[in-house]
Amino acid sequence: MSKTKVAIGIDVGGTNTVFGFVDHEGTLIYESSIPTNANEKADLLFDRLFKKVDEEFKKFSARYELIGIGIGAPNANYYKGTVEQPPNLNWGYVNVLEIVKKYSPLPSAITNDANAAAIGEMIFGAAKEMKNFIVITLGTGLGSGIVINGELVYGADGFAGEVGHTIVDSNGRECGCGRKGCLETYASATGIRRTVFEFIGTTTTPSELRNVNFNDLTAKEIADAANSGDKLALEAFDYTARILGLKLADTVACLSPEAIILFGGLALAGDLIIEPTKRYMEEYMLNIFKNKVKIIPSALPGGSAAILGASALIWNELEKHRR
Amino acid sequence: MSKTKVAIGIDVGGTNTVFGFVDHEGTLIYESSIPTNANEKADLLFDRLFKKVDEEFKKFSARYELIGIGIGAPNANYYKGTVEQPPNLNWGYVNVLEIVKKYSPLPSAITNDANAAAIGEMIFGAAKEMKNFIVITLGTGLGSGIVINGELVYGADGFAGEVGHTIVDSNGRECGCGRKGCLETYASATGIRRTVFEFIGTTTTPSELRNVNFNDLTAKEIADAANSGDKLALEAFDYTARILGLKLADTVACLSPEAIILFGGLALAGDLIIEPTKRYMEEYMLNIFKNKVKIIPSALPGGSAAILGASALIWNELEKHRR
Repeated sequence: MSKTKVAIGIDVGGTNTVFGFVDHEGTLIYESSIPTNANEKADLLFDRLFKKVDEEFKKFSARYELIGIGIGAPNANYYKGTVEQPPNLNWGYVNVLEIVKKYSPLPSAITNDANAAAIGEMIFGAAKEMKNFIVITLGTGLGSGIVINGELVYGADGFAGEVGHTIVDSNGRECGCGRKGCLETYASATGIRRTVFEFIGTTTTPSELRNVNFNDLTAKEIADAANSGDKLALEAFDYTARILGLKLADTVACLSPEAIILFGGLALAGDLIIEPTKRYMEEYMLNIFKNKVKIIPSALPGGSAAILGASALIWNELEKHRR
Repeated sequence: MSKTKVAIGIDVGGTNTVFGFVDHEGTLIYESSIPTNANEKADLLFDRLFKKVDEEFKKFSARYELIGIGIGAPNANYYKGTVEQPPNLNWGYVNVLEIVKKYSPLPSAITNDANAAAIGEMIFGAAKEMKNFIVITLGTGLGSGIVINGELVYGADGFAGEVGHTIVDSNGRECGCGRKGCLETYASATGIRRTVFEFIGTTTTPSELRNVNFNDLTAKEIADAANSGDKLALEAFDYTARILGLKLADTVACLSPEAIILFGGLALAGDLIIEPTKRYMEEYMLNIFKNKVKIIPSALPGGSAAILGASALIWNELEKHRR
């Protein structure tokens, strides 16, 4: 019996690094994780990781064959195989694919988590039949992966897709990037928390969220409050959706995608965020694009989306060679 | 002796329709124009145009061979071959390539003028060696043509590239598109005229432009005034460049192009617009993109750029088939 081919999908997060074995239909055969230890250098992480991978894969090697290694990591450069000054890891500038080659001769590829999510949606998820779409990840920040003519856009230097750092208001909120008013300071899980606290300060609207401190507040709690009718929480969703809808209308004007796929923590709020974002996007949309562009939630299963996305990098390369 | 191959380039403007015969090196063998008669339907224009083309080409047919017809026209859809509700022409919705087929069996293609300019720069101009770049046309409005991975971006519906209708300020200047605050209401030949008149109203800055009425004022006069040290004209260029630079920084964050090429009436002001636009773009740029993206003027000869761009549509199709 011939073995089933699987790709390793690895997602490097600030706290944990998750990995799994994924077949060409997106079935996750096995998944596990190790602590990232953000203060360690990259080679130590991959040393621990590949020891664990080798050990775990032994249980599967009779029936499965490894065909490649796909990695999602912050500030990853697809062209160079590097990770460059990631904000939450003490890695500096490091060539990850060179490290990986010490452990495995298999084909490998790396990109950031939003790009991996976009390729995951294209290969396994909500964008299977699409050639032009954008994935927006609404997590701690706002990431994006742009697909045009069936190919992920890496741009001239490998770093394209920073929709989260387009500017809403050049005198607006301070952003971690050192500038002001970036979209992600408004439209992300952190952004809506900032909005709630700004509204607590600027309005007298009663809210159960007035009893929570900023560091403890989560986007999920804001969604729960909104679902129980908390007016301030509802206003925070409306404000977030208006800004996101406006910037998505801008993105549509530039790129005319078929759909925008929302992914990540804040997208889990479902129609609290998706419906008003769509409504505001249409309100701000240039006439010729009105009622053409879908906004849809991710179709990757939440818990394993990052692994599926990373593994899809490899499945996508094989797909390209078949064309 | 074998004949030299030439493509017909046609650019449909609100006043005149220009056309010419262009070889594969971008040499314009012949050019001429006819009045567009904007109130006429499209088929009447092309009837007059092809009579003229046939008549003129007779003089060249001994040495040249026609290989295709490229057309630039407002609101043109590359996929469908249509022009849809052009703002300055009484055409409604019309399939231009079907009309063209009545007159010629040659391969034909149509797109809008900004996309034609981008393909012109790629085949004959400033972007010959580039795979990722953006052309911004600063004329009556602001048009853009986006090239990614060596291909023009038409998007899902054929209308991508409307950077001019991304929103600077959703409560800003009224735009011809029916919305408010579009980039082209600030950054275009018309935009800088509006800025001059707004500044005449809002400031007491002395200016020779206080003697000109709005309808008579041209971008060239504003450039001439700025070059003679007129403070209000200089401030208008600075304001235009700041807004354009900010939105170009946004575009770079999304697409990471190698260069942005400025084209059209206002770009002729040279370093009055290019230098400060570059400076503001860098000021607003996300760190990872700083000092990577060139802003350069068009390298297509001004008078015949539209014809060269339209003909390049055909040369680009042939190029694609060779790859």
